[in-house]
Amino acid sequence: MRHTKVKDLLNSTTTLQEINAKGWVRTFRNNQFIALNDGSTINNIQCVVDFENTPDETLKRITTGAAVSVTGSLVESKGAGQKYEIQVNKLEILGDSDAEKFPMQPKKHSLEFLRENAHLRVRTNAFGAIMRVRSVLSFAVHSYFQQKGFVYVNTPIVTGADAEGAGEMFQVTSLPLDNLPKTEEGNIDYKKDFFGKHTNLTVSGQLEGETFAMALGQIYTFGPTFRAENSNTSRHLAEFWMIEPEVAFNDLNDNMDLAEDFIKYVVKYAVDHCGDDLKFLEGRLIEEEKSKPQADRSEMPLLEKLGFVMNNDFKRVSYTEAVDILRDSTPNKKKKFQYIINEWGADLQSEHERYLVEKHFKCPVILFDYPANIKAFYMRLNEDGKTVRAMDILFPGIGEIVGGSQREERFDVLVEKMKALGIDEEELWWYLDTRRFGSAVHSGFGLGFERLVLFVTGMTNIRDVIPFPRTPQNAEF
Amino acid sequence: MRHTKVKDLLNSTTTLQEINAKGWVRTFRNNQFIALNDGSTINNIQCVVDFENTPDETLKRITTGAAVSVTGSLVESKGAGQKYEIQVNKLEILGDSDAEKFPMQPKKHSLEFLRENAHLRVRTNAFGAIMRVRSVLSFAVHSYFQQKGFVYVNTPIVTGADAEGAGEMFQVTSLPLDNLPKTEEGNIDYKKDFFGKHTNLTVSGQLEGETFAMALGQIYTFGPTFRAENSNTSRHLAEFWMIEPEVAFNDLNDNMDLAEDFIKYVVKYAVDHCGDDLKFLEGRLIEEEKSKPQADRSEMPLLEKLGFVMNNDFKRVSYTEAVDILRDSTPNKKKKFQYIINEWGADLQSEHERYLVEKHFKCPVILFDYPANIKAFYMRLNEDGKTVRAMDILFPGIGEIVGGSQREERFDVLVEKMKALGIDEEELWWYLDTRRFGSAVHSGFGLGFERLVLFVTGMTNIRDVIPFPRTPQNAEF
Repeated sequence: MRHTKVKDLLNSTTTLQEINAKGWVRTFRNNQFIALNDGSTINNIQCVVDFENTPDETLKRITTGAAVSVTGSLVESKGAGQKYEIQVNKLEILGDSDAEKFPMQPKKHSLEFLRENAHLRVRTNAFGAIMRVRSVLSFAVHSYFQQKGFVYVNTPIVTGADAEGAGEMFQVTSLPLDNLPKTEEGNIDYKKDFFGKHTNLTVSGQLEGETFAMALGQIYTFGPTFRAENSNTSRHLAEFWMIEPEVAFNDLNDNMDLAEDFIKYVVKYAVDHCGDDLKFLEGRLIEEEKSKPQADRSEMPLLEKLGFVMNNDFKRVSYTEAVDILRDSTPNKKKKFQYIINEWGADLQSEHERYLVEKHFKCPVILFDYPANIKAFYMRLNEDGKTVRAMDILFPGIGEIVGGSQREERFDVLVEKMKALGIDEEELWWYLDTRRFGSAVHSGFGLGFERLVLFVTGMTNIRDVIPFPRTPQNAEF
Repeated sequence: MRHTKVKDLLNSTTTLQEINAKGWVRTFRNNQFIALNDGSTINNIQCVVDFENTPDETLKRITTGAAVSVTGSLVESKGAGQKYEIQVNKLEILGDSDAEKFPMQPKKHSLEFLRENAHLRVRTNAFGAIMRVRSVLSFAVHSYFQQKGFVYVNTPIVTGADAEGAGEMFQVTSLPLDNLPKTEEGNIDYKKDFFGKHTNLTVSGQLEGETFAMALGQIYTFGPTFRAENSNTSRHLAEFWMIEPEVAFNDLNDNMDLAEDFIKYVVKYAVDHCGDDLKFLEGRLIEEEKSKPQADRSEMPLLEKLGFVMNNDFKRVSYTEAVDILRDSTPNKKKKFQYIINEWGADLQSEHERYLVEKHFKCPVILFDYPANIKAFYMRLNEDGKTVRAMDILFPGIGEIVGGSQREERFDVLVEKMKALGIDEEELWWYLDTRRFGSAVHSGFGLGFERLVLFVTGMTNIRDVIPFPRTPQNAEF
């Protein structure tokens, strides 16, 4: 007999004869009530075991974590809390789970402990919910762009280009490290490496993405990117997934419109499709914050916060305005900021971004027109000669979630900038070709997917929203 | 004025006043007719320039590859071949393209030449079509699994586990190769590497995926995987995208059903959504095959072949039956095979797979129940003690497109197999936990995405269906 998913059984509109369910025991009460979960939903189905006619041997094996198959009828539940339950006629233990040894017992575990058991934490309510929400958000990303006619582009992961300077890179090699081939001059002979040159893991697919946008019009990437930065924070991963749309003929305003519309769409999609999971995560957050001082708690419950983002315009503020606000702010005057903002041109730190978003505007903020010298070489220089058409989107509790810009489409200006920064033109010949042949205004942005998942799930550590986090000194599993 | 996409203009149901289109010039005829493409469709829109009132200076700049903006009216075309065309009132050159230098002139280029210009080849009809089809196929993959309630899982790219043995691996490191830190014993000190251990690029997300399937029930991965194999063939890439579903409680038959249903769905999705592009690619293939001997040409035009796959059952054949067929086959008897099949247990080579699919059955074939000793350690041993519940799906012209199996769910049997093969139990402690706690029958498969794109587009070299191919001695762009 084919088994029916727990989700479908719970959503049934009638009682049912002769059904089979398979899943894992979450709890077993009174030698009679199994809370069974199969991952299809956060909700368990109650299975009522006929304990008087079940051998003690079998009952003892119904432990937390055990895989079981139950056959019986879906009947109206006499108990509170569920409409239907399974009256079990036949129970089969598929796989035991030694209660002495199974680490995921039905009690509160620390997030630290769960990270060390990333292969099992997904069997808990919270991580099951997070991973389902993450999956639905991924699909929302694809749905949004595909509906609008964007072409999904898989830019390369291993790259010979390391000129972009978005961050420290990991080297990829097939050379034997304990017996490196050398050139006559005594250098490492990368001609003997797999790709015949020094190669790294990508930090961004943007440059390759631009070449495709200048042919297909609207493209997006969604793939893993890497930073070999020793950042042991709750907001950084060495391996993370990034979404990078790039659109020909879009200027910076179009780019801001696209980013805001995109974020609202995917958040709404999660709210519309992950109701049960988000309700659970909202409760989890409230519970977790009880131990925090009032000032550190969220201002709104999770679902209200998501609704707020969906339904309110993001505040658009130029860098210059932002610096004025920060200079006049109480924490700046009282020297509460670690980095005091004295003058125009200062790079904004996370403390400043948080002040703007969480204290001053109390909503998502788009900062734009940054000083040229704190931004990347490919950003479009404004007519003022000192700012570039960059934009960052800042989210409460998350900080920067999007970084984007209108790109410098003028060949001469771009080359001059590269020269000034010592970026090798030869190496980026193909990138410069987009400006040599049929150049046009175009814009794009990058959104760190895990930061989006953090925001939507209300989690606070980025290691808890990716299946197997990669951080300094950690590549287990 | 906002520009309208060429696709929307061509699909218009009425004439339109005051429209703007932006794109790249494909050709410019008679000083009057621009064929304009913006990547939204393979079709160009004809733009009729009022050449008598346009300065010669401007007309000269309308060259292949130039980016232009045209404003005017969408009117019924007097010419053949299109319903509508743009009567241009205002033309603006956005970006020039020097006809002497632009490599993508409107003539036939070799695929070799185009690969060397992977950043520009997407501006040709064929590669625009291929990349759109690839994108739509990606979305079909996600749509299929999400509709069925599968959870998308991003398994790690950088991995400390190298026990799977699916192929040669690339090393990932942040150590300085010209100054490697050493332990007291003189070995490389991987404790000083970024992750504190020796790490590689993943060859498969299956093992991590299994841990999630044993919690969430149905999962799939879709991400990049890597093989450091020096295979300079038209079917191998060092970096390719793989789809790996894994389903708890599925046995090998369920697994075959899932794979067949999945492939039929995504092929149909492409046919339903990429009509124009596939029609073009069908024509391209016919043209290309004209120079080949009759025997080497496709038996069916592209769309007919796709229809055939959508509408016919895949032939399911056990390894044992397949070996019997091969042993009795003409090429085996006449010693035309490079590897003669003499006895049960032989590993099948590509020549044998092609014979079965292309000559004997003339349809997609699923081979199952392979000899245990030519397959991976994690495959479920059959009761005969010598075969495992493995399955490969073989496609005409492509060879193996899917490899999968029912997994060995019995802890003891699995451990014994690992010991026999010298696979470190310690290193795979987390994988073994799935069999320690709540183990159950489960199955999955891997599908090489580029092979699917090859099949659907009718291309013959895998380097032509991924934006920037990575192969031995090649990581340009």
